[in-house]
Amino acid sequence: MTTSARWRTAASEVLRAGAGFALADVDPDSTPGYTGRKRDGVDDLAEGATRLGELQERLFAQSVAGTAEGSVLLLLQAMDTAGKGGVVRHVVGAVDPQGVELAAFKKPTEEELAHDFLWRVERRLPEPGRIGVFDRSHYEDVLIGRVRALAPPEEIQRRYGAIEEFEADAAARGIRWVKVMLHLSREEQRKRLADRLDRPDKQWKYNPGDVDEQERWDDYMAAYQVAIERTSSEAAPWHVVPADRKWYARLAVQELLAEALAGLNPTWPAPDYDVEREKARLAAT
Amino acid sequence: MTTSARWRTAASEVLRAGAGFALADVDPDSTPGYTGRKRDGVDDLAEGATRLGELQERLFAQSVAGTAEGSVLLLLQAMDTAGKGGVVRHVVGAVDPQGVELAAFKKPTEEELAHDFLWRVERRLPEPGRIGVFDRSHYEDVLIGRVRALAPPEEIQRRYGAIEEFEADAAARGIRWVKVMLHLSREEQRKRLADRLDRPDKQWKYNPGDVDEQERWDDYMAAYQVAIERTSSEAAPWHVVPADRKWYARLAVQELLAEALAGLNPTWPAPDYDVEREKARLAAT
Repeated sequence: MTTSARWRTAASEVLRAGAGFALADVDPDSTPGYTGRKRDGVDDLAEGATRLGELQERLFAQSVAGTAEGSVLLLLQAMDTAGKGGVVRHVVGAVDPQGVELAAFKKPTEEELAHDFLWRVERRLPEPGRIGVFDRSHYEDVLIGRVRALAPPEEIQRRYGAIEEFEADAAARGIRWVKVMLHLSREEQRKRLADRLDRPDKQWKYNPGDVDEQERWDDYMAAYQVAIERTSSEAAPWHVVPADRKWYARLAVQELLAEALAGLNPTWPAPDYDVEREKARLAAT
Repeated sequence: MTTSARWRTAASEVLRAGAGFALADVDPDSTPGYTGRKRDGVDDLAEGATRLGELQERLFAQSVAGTAEGSVLLLLQAMDTAGKGGVVRHVVGAVDPQGVELAAFKKPTEEELAHDFLWRVERRLPEPGRIGVFDRSHYEDVLIGRVRALAPPEEIQRRYGAIEEFEADAAARGIRWVKVMLHLSREEQRKRLADRLDRPDKQWKYNPGDVDEQERWDDYMAAYQVAIERTSSEAAPWHVVPADRKWYARLAVQELLAEALAGLNPTWPAPDYDVEREKARLAAT
């Protein structure tokens, strides 16, 4: 149940966006905190899945027993092709689906647009004892929202503060935030998009709008920089995970998730019935 | 992408509850249609997961492209400890969680009780292109509902017809039902309950009501017999899966699910954009 020794520094520490954070200084091809190479990373991911599964089962047991106090919420933001889907599949997909609440936020519907931007996310916050996953989130409203000017500048400005408050409230109610930006390089995105166009089993993942967004790469990076600066708080810190190497990105997110779960210190709930008496009753059937 | 040669007869055929079905004739310790032993079953489950994952990815791709016409809905009913959780974890858990909609139906809430018994299940029917999973279902209302007389006899009688109609309507709208009863022996249940009482990491799964239900075993089997007889239709057939051997039950459900997915014959959606033009645009960024 321990972290691989190949983590030289805890992932939550080395990847955290703290004071003075500059996205431009993060190399998307790097592997911060981890001393292993790809082969080690693949091994550690498999071992980590067992550890994550055990922690999650304990947390789930608490939720069934009604004693769970907290939940973990993995929030994933990234440029297209950065590997959100792979993280969901290979990291989250390794634990019992019964304990996971996955919410994918797409382009808002008319109903969603009629409410404040936090409305649709608030109702998807995980129950105690669960792992929640936000595949995109309220950050879209200050990322594409800012780049594409989908709202007036003063509304965008208002949102940073609203997000910080919302996340702090949720944290106070027991939600442990794991906010992750998967950080890809523009060059790697171009390669991955080209790969999608080449493969009949990947063409469905491509849409022409992806190139338009590629052209606004620098605007997006600026929007991420501001969002991270303004909303990386004690209650809900951001972690920026280099994502040009898929194996590292998955391993790092798994590690962040495991650290958060371990932080809740879930233990098997004590039975609320008399075990010996039940054994006798069962034997008598 | 083919079924293991160790299936002598298609699972959907050999396990199907057809005319003249008698639950009492099904041996919970048997392995119908499958010629392999446990070790083979474990190997086939791992290989089958790859096949299931591929089928599901194609279906999911269609849902993203908006061309999916159908969905598959796995409905699981069983006595306690029969292994529903293991099926969710090891069969369903092997495919991409993004394409799965899991609904666990517990004791109805007040709001649910204020509606017709089908209300809460209808709203959880899967979207086109998804795999839905019902962990328990509307059948509780003719199983525990009947055994515990939670509704008047004439209401229970009405429900069989209402279920048949509801399921036929859903099938007409593209839902492919995979209704599964995991069939455990009373003796094996007693062993599994005793095991739960013995293990601190399993005690949370036990509750004293389980013994009360054990004592009504025969009533439950009679209720299952009637439910299966009355609702195993062309549109939504029942499959009874012997469950004393966990490896067989998981393998059989995986096979039923794969057959249903293969029946939808999902193909990669054709791009709705000009691939060559997009390659040129991308190269120009």
